[in-house]
Amino acid sequence: MMIDALPVREKILIARLRERAARQLNSRRLRAQVKTGGAVICGIGDDAAVLRIPPGHQALVTTDFSLEDVHFRLAWDSAEAIGHRTLLRGLSDIAAMGGEPTAAFLSLALPAQVRDDWVERFLAGLLNLARRFGVSLAGGDTSQSPQKILADIIVVGSVPSNRAILRSGAQVGDRIYVTGRLGASAARLAELYSAGARTRPPSGAQDRLGMPRIALGRALRRLSLATSMIDLSDGLSTDLDHLCQESRVGAQIWEEAIPRAAWDGDRVEMKFALHGGEDYELLFTARRKRRMPKTIDGIRITEIGTITRGRKAFLVNSSGRQVAFGPAGWEHFAPHSGS
Amino acid sequence: MMIDALPVREKILIARLRERAARQLNSRRLRAQVKTGGAVICGIGDDAAVLRIPPGHQALVTTDFSLEDVHFRLAWDSAEAIGHRTLLRGLSDIAAMGGEPTAAFLSLALPAQVRDDWVERFLAGLLNLARRFGVSLAGGDTSQSPQKILADIIVVGSVPSNRAILRSGAQVGDRIYVTGRLGASAARLAELYSAGARTRPPSGAQDRLGMPRIALGRALRRLSLATSMIDLSDGLSTDLDHLCQESRVGAQIWEEAIPRAAWDGDRVEMKFALHGGEDYELLFTARRKRRMPKTIDGIRITEIGTITRGRKAFLVNSSGRQVAFGPAGWEHFAPHSGS
Repeated sequence: MMIDALPVREKILIARLRERAARQLNSRRLRAQVKTGGAVICGIGDDAAVLRIPPGHQALVTTDFSLEDVHFRLAWDSAEAIGHRTLLRGLSDIAAMGGEPTAAFLSLALPAQVRDDWVERFLAGLLNLARRFGVSLAGGDTSQSPQKILADIIVVGSVPSNRAILRSGAQVGDRIYVTGRLGASAARLAELYSAGARTRPPSGAQDRLGMPRIALGRALRRLSLATSMIDLSDGLSTDLDHLCQESRVGAQIWEEAIPRAAWDGDRVEMKFALHGGEDYELLFTARRKRRMPKTIDGIRITEIGTITRGRKAFLVNSSGRQVAFGPAGWEHFAPHSGS
Repeated sequence: MMIDALPVREKILIARLRERAARQLNSRRLRAQVKTGGAVICGIGDDAAVLRIPPGHQALVTTDFSLEDVHFRLAWDSAEAIGHRTLLRGLSDIAAMGGEPTAAFLSLALPAQVRDDWVERFLAGLLNLARRFGVSLAGGDTSQSPQKILADIIVVGSVPSNRAILRSGAQVGDRIYVTGRLGASAARLAELYSAGARTRPPSGAQDRLGMPRIALGRALRRLSLATSMIDLSDGLSTDLDHLCQESRVGAQIWEEAIPRAAWDGDRVEMKFALHGGEDYELLFTARRKRRMPKTIDGIRITEIGTITRGRKAFLVNSSGRQVAFGPAGWEHFAPHSGS
């Protein structure tokens, strides 16, 4: 382990920090989470975790960064919400495959100035969500960080062999659906931006704790309803583009059909629903003739368009005009971008 | 995706960087690595990778940070060597379980000022090692980084069910062994420290490209030779302590038996072999009555001590005196530590 030539005081601080982070990841409370006899045979405390994948199943693996000042800001989110969203990113990927999550691994690097109680609350937010979905924290890595908080979450899951719902299965003529309502995360973010980068969130902009659509994704897989699927993490326009690229198809989306989230007593602006990230809803396709339930697992399912030939996506807006609908994502609501 | 309020020029740079990193992780060369029909059913380009774990096997999962100025320095190591060691950390953990590596996942965050060719060479170093051990790069995450280069490597492997060699299996009376020779990484690091933090490595301190002891670990498992095992990443004194804690035993190590690496025409100083990290050799225990080969897979096996009662480790030094042998690790060769 290499360390910069730091003053002794800082070295002691870092050593303590490493100890604390290691202890937290090794605490009895966390060990109790590791279900022995369950899917996790051997968790924290060995060179690698040993996981049981059920017979006739394949393993799913996904990794997602949560970096301070890239994916979250300390001034804008509670520690619990940041912990929650760190794991949510990974669980949502498993949901989008129609899979079942098994275990999570957290790599966490902390700068010396982070307070103990922040780390405790971050872990509490992460572990509350883990518990809710029967996921064990089975390992990870800890390190001091030169400057900012760095987290990388790995989620391992399983799916019956060759039944994972891929991005590449959409076919011309398929209908396009989304779950839930879109744009609330982006609307909140825009409000925070306009209030200034260093302030506390305004009252309307509390933490939004999205939930991974695990049961919904699993139902779509069991009923063989979805031909392709992706989770909405980067925004509808960007994630639809990923799906079209992988399936080698195009898409036509009806703007008026897009289910917009409520915000401040009204629906969010259309741009947030079209391009805003971090909704963690599912975008999927199904054969034209398959009948789709109005809700699955209590979550509304909305038809928003059709898979077409060509590789481009188009939006039919309220006046019936068809416009190009390319990937946009965060740039549309970042400051100084002229939008 | 949230982004700081950056000047437009920087935002464009970051967008290009993200694109480039995504393209590199999605390039045809990398996709070709993803063995379709092999263990990796679906790799880069979906929400999660789909992996086949052989029937009768369990999955192994390990994650390891490689952070700039914590685990490596740009002035001291080539990009290729940093890429190599990033993956080596994970492969070595799989070796220490007696397992077989299947797939790797790279989470990589790059600051705007990193040059394209550095990233290319980093990936080349990582992928050369991956190819050598039949490991596919099956996914990961990319992000801009606010300041330094941040990598997290995840390696997934497999092992026949309930045959993983754990840290917790050592029993009183077992003999203690190490593979290879110890201390070269620490000796190199000490030389770099004494030459000054910002200089290029002196001629004697070229990159050391350690190799994960995969075949050796697998042989120990197949022959049921090892009762417990750990890889030497933090240093003998620290990793022996981990093994003793997990097995609830103590240890007696014979200083004179420790196989020291060659350095500058001589053997390394004893402190580097005792406490130096990043050797990536294996430390394991075996029943007293089992006969141990002198070499396995061409790597020398050396008996260095015995598992004892109690939870403490002791070192019998050259004068026959027994001294406490607690975890030390990097602090022993870091500057300003008084050693």
